[in-house]
Amino acid sequence: MIYCDHAATAPLCPEAREAMRPYLSFAANPSALYSAARDASYAVKKAREQVAACIGARPEEIYFTSCGTEADNWAVKGCARKVLAGWGARRLVLSAIEHPAVTETCLSLAPLGFETVLLPVDPMGLVARASLEEALIGGAALVSVMAANNEIGTLEPIRELCALAHEKGVPFHTDAVQAVGHIPVDVEKWGVDLLSASGHKFSAPRGTGFLYIRKGFALPPLLSGGGQERGMRSGTENVAGIVGLAAALTARVKQMEKDAAALDKMRARILEGLRDRGVDFRVNGAPDALPGFLSLSFRDMDGEMLLHRLDLKGVLVSTGSACHAGKETVSPVIRAIGVPEAYEKGTLRLTLGPENTMEEAECLLQALVEAVR
Amino acid sequence: MIYCDHAATAPLCPEAREAMRPYLSFAANPSALYSAARDASYAVKKAREQVAACIGARPEEIYFTSCGTEADNWAVKGCARKVLAGWGARRLVLSAIEHPAVTETCLSLAPLGFETVLLPVDPMGLVARASLEEALIGGAALVSVMAANNEIGTLEPIRELCALAHEKGVPFHTDAVQAVGHIPVDVEKWGVDLLSASGHKFSAPRGTGFLYIRKGFALPPLLSGGGQERGMRSGTENVAGIVGLAAALTARVKQMEKDAAALDKMRARILEGLRDRGVDFRVNGAPDALPGFLSLSFRDMDGEMLLHRLDLKGVLVSTGSACHAGKETVSPVIRAIGVPEAYEKGTLRLTLGPENTMEEAECLLQALVEAVR
Repeated sequence: MIYCDHAATAPLCPEAREAMRPYLSFAANPSALYSAARDASYAVKKAREQVAACIGARPEEIYFTSCGTEADNWAVKGCARKVLAGWGARRLVLSAIEHPAVTETCLSLAPLGFETVLLPVDPMGLVARASLEEALIGGAALVSVMAANNEIGTLEPIRELCALAHEKGVPFHTDAVQAVGHIPVDVEKWGVDLLSASGHKFSAPRGTGFLYIRKGFALPPLLSGGGQERGMRSGTENVAGIVGLAAALTARVKQMEKDAAALDKMRARILEGLRDRGVDFRVNGAPDALPGFLSLSFRDMDGEMLLHRLDLKGVLVSTGSACHAGKETVSPVIRAIGVPEAYEKGTLRLTLGPENTMEEAECLLQALVEAVR
Repeated sequence: MIYCDHAATAPLCPEAREAMRPYLSFAANPSALYSAARDASYAVKKAREQVAACIGARPEEIYFTSCGTEADNWAVKGCARKVLAGWGARRLVLSAIEHPAVTETCLSLAPLGFETVLLPVDPMGLVARASLEEALIGGAALVSVMAANNEIGTLEPIRELCALAHEKGVPFHTDAVQAVGHIPVDVEKWGVDLLSASGHKFSAPRGTGFLYIRKGFALPPLLSGGGQERGMRSGTENVAGIVGLAAALTARVKQMEKDAAALDKMRARILEGLRDRGVDFRVNGAPDALPGFLSLSFRDMDGEMLLHRLDLKGVLVSTGSACHAGKETVSPVIRAIGVPEAYEKGTLRLTLGPENTMEEAECLLQALVEAVR
């Protein structure tokens, strides 16, 4: 099996598995008062420091969640909640190519009077400064633009867009689920107020994630209760998961440059091979994209058919995001960037990961050429 | 180490560990279209059927969450949301001894105009029908009463209270976090609309839980996004966690009668031993309580001091709920049931689990007698 769907989920890395081992069968409840609980509590504290170090944050700015979706929902609903209980424009401003965890959350607030404004993107999937400026006339509860798109891999100009939102006094959230662990992320440099991440996208266990909340930024909790995570995210801490998340992220960040170089080589090899064999296709997204990320649209093809042909050859890829799988012929992202009609239905997403080899890339290329023919 | 704090968290059972093994290092994203994803998707489907069978529900009434706190928040905020977006009384009716995951969630809705009404309990911790009847004059968005209390183990008359709420047209939620896997739970018999459960309280992995939603009961999602869990709880499925939860619950339900008999024997032995040695203490809670659950208040003692003395002897217990640990001298639950002043500060919670033995119960008894002297 050649697994090339890392943007959907990545296998657990050995570093995470090792780190989790002592806590899998038993981890005391960190809120308990006996000494065993202090070990669990210390493990969570250390994990928080590791995660913070990986994104240029302070430990007290990291809040562990159960997934990226929870982090996204928390960011959006928290900002909306502030407006509901106080004052301000009931407007949420997003890119037109956000993940549904952001888009659907915003749309779900319509019955409470919130308007969702979608910023258009150019053919590379980039949000323009001008459109954001216009959308912010009259204010907003939040601007949310993803750091890296999950279907085409495009990296958005977060620092620039965030600065603009702040000029207008509007908080800025970035869904960095595809970015964290894949490209350098520095919350200080970007200046964001809120940033979401998902563990299993960077080889950590499923059911883990975190929300970065800038120090001093007031966000009401999404999950109330026992007061874990300094009162901000209740629920008994998933110690094994949290420790695994920190170990995976640390490992990925350490290997990031080396991994990116290897992934880009594989990516280039696949593109070169397809061109050499005269395959008629387009590459979607911006040149500044996630490492090892390929969104390709093949002329007069059906993406789902290609996917199944590759599956039979043991090569696992996707048509777009896993979330949209099987729902629509053409994903909203592919539509938003205006892929020509002859190509749009023939879209495949190949997302390579650190455990893929050049040999596998060659096999994938071969399988892809055969599938297209 | 003798672990007697199962109400805080229970060690992973072998059945769950075994069931999770194939999915820990890699589980495809169930939303993907290749064949490997169907295996993951099938594992989740099977787990849903197993869980449903354990509580007398239909599989389509089970929604996996990341924890009991998420399930509680979802139930409360979902019902509040319906009132916010429509009409109805902005009133939430709870017992005075609910877990903070319910109480704090209700109180957090005060800025949105919600009033929280706390139903008093009798000295055994039981909610009276009459107080609920009175609280429902004028209607409510939700009644929430826990199935089993987490500090004193009292079982509430859910069926009766639920019937009364339904007579008044008010939905009923029960936080069954301490009950599921410990006592027979039958949603049909109880008639509840919503029921929360937490995996790690019944020997499943941390970071898992579920919400039962009666078929036909409309509850808006708490987490929006990719549309997992039939659009009701977005976020990539934690396949290993879900499979582990189902395996643990199935095992616990299968062994329930046998376990309960053994736990009650240990409980009786400890009480008998304390009385034989002339220790001055009270047993908190109702006679109809969770198996192996002991809330004891020792005269003129300090619970925290007793806890630390036991910790030094390798016996792990708690003073009350883990959530309140270290926060207050006397927990709100102990106060609500009116434990006499001479006893209230000397409260310990001993919660035995299926892996405890009679030999351990004897050691605990011995350690306890020494700690009290």
